Amino acid sequence: MRIDVKQASELLRQQDNILILAHENPDGDTLGCAYALCRALHNLNKKARVACADKTPHIFDFIPRGVEVQDFEEQFIVSVDIADMSLLGDEEYAAQYRERIDLCVDHHGSNSMTAKYICMEEEPEAAACAETVLLIIRELGAPIDEIIARCIYVGITTDTGCFRYSNTTSRSLRMAADMVDVGLNTGKINKLTFETRTKTYTALETLALSSMKMFFDGKCAVIKITQDMYEKSGSDESETHPITAIPRQIEGVLVGAAIKETKDGATYKISVRTNAPANAANICAKMGGGGHRRAAGCALKGRTLEEVYETLINAIGEELEQALKETGE
Amino acid sequence: MRIDVKQASELLRQQDNILILAHENPDGDTLGCAYALCRALHNLNKKARVACADKTPHIFDFIPRGVEVQDFEEQFIVSVDIADMSLLGDEEYAAQYRERIDLCVDHHGSNSMTAKYICMEEEPEAAACAETVLLIIRELGAPIDEIIARCIYVGITTDTGCFRYSNTTSRSLRMAADMVDVGLNTGKINKLTFETRTKTYTALETLALSSMKMFFDGKCAVIKITQDMYEKSGSDESETHPITAIPRQIEGVLVGAAIKETKDGATYKISVRTNAPANAANICAKMGGGGHRRAAGCALKGRTLEEVYETLINAIGEELEQALKETGE
Repeated sequence: MRIDVKQASELLRQQDNILILAHENPDGDTLGCAYALCRALHNLNKKARVACADKTPHIFDFIPRGVEVQDFEEQFIVSVDIADMSLLGDEEYAAQYRERIDLCVDHHGSNSMTAKYICMEEEPEAAACAETVLLIIRELGAPIDEIIARCIYVGITTDTGCFRYSNTTSRSLRMAADMVDVGLNTGKINKLTFETRTKTYTALETLALSSMKMFFDGKCAVIKITQDMYEKSGSDESETHPITAIPRQIEGVLVGAAIKETKDGATYKISVRTNAPANAANICAKMGGGGHRRAAGCALKGRTLEEVYETLINAIGEELEQALKETGE
Repeated sequence: MRIDVKQASELLRQQDNILILAHENPDGDTLGCAYALCRALHNLNKKARVACADKTPHIFDFIPRGVEVQDFEEQFIVSVDIADMSLLGDEEYAAQYRERIDLCVDHHGSNSMTAKYICMEEEPEAAACAETVLLIIRELGAPIDEIIARCIYVGITTDTGCFRYSNTTSRSLRMAADMVDVGLNTGKINKLTFETRTKTYTALETLALSSMKMFFDGKCAVIKITQDMYEKSGSDESETHPITAIPRQIEGVLVGAAIKETKDGATYKISVRTNAPANAANICAKMGGGGHRRAAGCALKGRTLEEVYETLINAIGEELEQALKETGE
């Protein structure tokens, strides 16, 4: 049943011994939501604790700081920032909670969770789930202390790329301003969230960027990330996300792509990012994949790296021709 | 004479044929201030135009868009975001305006301008000069249209690193929210301001990062940028600024440094950035330079690159020892 923020807070007010679930591979939004809500419930003298299939990444160690760890048998289960049961964790982990989620608080249009109650804002859509959680906390009347402010701020900045992405609304900025007024060292928080590079990431980025090739008169940039690069840099696939965004950032580039070699040596994962008018989903659909207009992906199996380049460049060339013809450029 | 925002707007209200000066090598804040103020004056049926010693960098082409270019003999001169006469432009250019500036609107604590009236906020200090300009425009009662909103937004985001830096206040965020509400495509603006890399920059970054060396158990990271790298990448010193920030961003690094070879081949410019407790000014002072706690610089002449490394690493080692002793780490 779909409920609004007021109804969600009413529901929470009636409950105690509340377990809050964050999604696997947790990011700043799911962790920020979970610990902000947990702390707010503690501030209202309720028992609450957070659970997550994976450990908190150490750059986010500061999020749970100061939130008491409580032990109790859960009577009410809330999921935050989880769009689908498959994002809860592996099958064994998820099985504990299947059919047992009472309240799902989320902000993904694609939400397909099974829960007694689902609370999602539609107008305006929340850039971060932390925005909706803040509204629930305000409705609950829980005092907003420095811990809650820090958690909500990290949630909003994580999902808006520190207010850079186009999902940022004036509400995102105002809510962040309210959190700052509680007394946050946002410079320090943002440095941890956005400006810390591991040595292994830096080494991998250098190797990957060295492989960059340009095609179609500078309209396309392609990098590769090989197993050999992981070995040389001491890095692994979990650190590739920011690198795959770089080719599209180059001036004049409409299609940026990254070819990632997998462990089996015969499968290549391809990540495509575009600027208008090029469509990433169209490109990846030609290769059996899919996604969104600006970001999509696919996997090519049983081929050599040379063949992968050829297939990819052909698909990109077709899309560029089509897209530029349509816009008359 | 120091005046406040109200007095500055009163002064502008009494004037016409107003020339607005931006600083040389213009950035988003000086340009945003200049064009926002210019447009606001046009909206009040006054004549106004912007002058700058240098061309608008093409990533900021969108800032002046829609602001009418007007020709008239100036009767009143305003400088925006200019801390010192030397930042106006070269001597010949600056000579035209020396002793002729009527109103200086700025936000640099170090302001040393010669002007009849100086308007600077102290409490709270403005993160961007655009914040003070917005207050003046509001006080003038000029309608805030999309052009003004765009200019103010770019000014604030430029000087706060899109709200990442520690100078960001809740007022910065709320003013930006007000500008967003006028109707801005902030995703597009931020992409231009923060996510566009030139091909030459990307090539130079790759070469420079490949040169990274770590010292003192990972507490120090040093990169070099040579004339050979400029040649290979097609880049030049004007693009080195973002690269010099990278060594400090690496996890565990307290001192990040960049050694830049100059054209004469015998002088090396050194840029040092630190995290607490290391002090960049201390390090550069040992080598005849200076600066701030977190960012400082110096130049070493007539030495080989090997000697420069040695001198730099010694200076860094002394500061690290001192700083870590003081904090008991």
